[in-house]
Amino acid sequence: MIIIGEKINGFIPKTLAAINARDEDYIRFIAQGQKDGGANYLDICAGVAPEIERETMEWLMQIVQDAVDLPLCLDSSDPQVLLDMMPFAKRPGILNSVSLEEGKCEAILPAIADTEWCVVALTCDSTGLPGGPKAKFELASKIIGKANALGIASSRIFIDALVEGIATKEDSFLSFSEAIRLIKAEYPDVHFTSGLSNISFGMPYRKAINMQFLALSMAAGMDSAIMDPMSADMQATLHATNTLLGNDEYCMEYLQAYRGGLFDARPA
Amino acid sequence: MIIIGEKINGFIPKTLAAINARDEDYIRFIAQGQKDGGANYLDICAGVAPEIERETMEWLMQIVQDAVDLPLCLDSSDPQVLLDMMPFAKRPGILNSVSLEEGKCEAILPAIADTEWCVVALTCDSTGLPGGPKAKFELASKIIGKANALGIASSRIFIDALVEGIATKEDSFLSFSEAIRLIKAEYPDVHFTSGLSNISFGMPYRKAINMQFLALSMAAGMDSAIMDPMSADMQATLHATNTLLGNDEYCMEYLQAYRGGLFDARPA
Repeated sequence: MIIIGEKINGFIPKTLAAINARDEDYIRFIAQGQKDGGANYLDICAGVAPEIERETMEWLMQIVQDAVDLPLCLDSSDPQVLLDMMPFAKRPGILNSVSLEEGKCEAILPAIADTEWCVVALTCDSTGLPGGPKAKFELASKIIGKANALGIASSRIFIDALVEGIATKEDSFLSFSEAIRLIKAEYPDVHFTSGLSNISFGMPYRKAINMQFLALSMAAGMDSAIMDPMSADMQATLHATNTLLGNDEYCMEYLQAYRGGLFDARPA
Repeated sequence: MIIIGEKINGFIPKTLAAINARDEDYIRFIAQGQKDGGANYLDICAGVAPEIERETMEWLMQIVQDAVDLPLCLDSSDPQVLLDMMPFAKRPGILNSVSLEEGKCEAILPAIADTEWCVVALTCDSTGLPGGPKAKFELASKIIGKANALGIASSRIFIDALVEGIATKEDSFLSFSEAIRLIKAEYPDVHFTSGLSNISFGMPYRKAINMQFLALSMAAGMDSAIMDPMSADMQATLHATNTLLGNDEYCMEYLQAYRGGLFDARPA
């Protein structure tokens, strides 16, 4: 599993408070904590007003890159912000995200074509309408086609098939997992990722749904997640599932995670 | 999901203590608690020396059947004990279990042929050797064939494909789920059940593995489990998974379980 740590995100109230207070210690704490939890990338999302987004991201990137040696996942809805931030990254990471919304692929894909940067691709367009598995497959195909045409290998693309909330769409997970199946059959080299909390929006006891969404999605072929590696529940779910799915020789990763205290509740 | 409550079992130390002390209150407590947790059947296993097994089971059956109106799953390694206990059941339930061990099918299957009793069928024979998915399929086929020949419909058979411990067999879950797939393809009407704790034998933090074994097995087609319906973790896993798999219209069962307190830790 490729873990993208989600915590350095201004849309999370505690992180926003730290951003507003310029609390470097807290940012370093969640950077290191996520690395210790096995994060492969750290998502960086300012979550502030557009006029201060760039300076905020630059500040976050500097603190995080001074604290831990991990590539970043630069996260903004404005493709120009992503392009402007790339030079501040110490090494190639992931741009989060493109979609078929007007202008996004055109701005981002050429800029990463001759680099080692990866990209998250959302299966949506300007209509914003959520589609079924086949519609998601079509949207993914178009983005992968545009990327491949520029020389961007499929293995540099993380498809996010945009799971909807189970509270309003009963077949939400089934549609998501079927989209993965369809896309994987045609493009075996792409990665699949997703945030884990959209699925439980509006439901009580959300962590149970988020945990099983992670487990069932891994079984369906999802090989990455945008998640909180400092959550003991999520670590236990991730490692138990990974072991059961036969990806953990001699249960070494599970045992190492357990011994490292990753299944113990930690302050965050 | 068809839930077989596992708690009234003398191999569980706390239950054995209650059996030895003839503590009727505790037996009633775990009978009612499991019913409140949605159990469809209550397993009754004496777990005591053979010479007192029958009287112990009869005592348990009487207390349980006076306390709650649920069918029982009579559980003994001795087929003659199962046959001797059947008359004490107020209504047909499940006999746990038959296998291809010598004499088991021959004793049990004719006795339930013209009844409404169901039976758990283990995919093993007298060799005791655990096989791969195809071996499990062959063993299941033989038992189903013997049952069908006596007029026992496949829908009265609960196949337990005997999952092994992940600590000693890395592909344990994969083999188990593949066996389910093979058997279900040939016999779509049989049920599939399993205890949830064998998989984690010898591992630390067993509950994480047991929870994800339940979730992944449900995704693989298991439609029954021999489990503890009084466990908040297992209830949350069961209901979240059931909802994600599209079996819970309007999330009603999940919401009802949550509102009923089934996700809250309870004394047991």
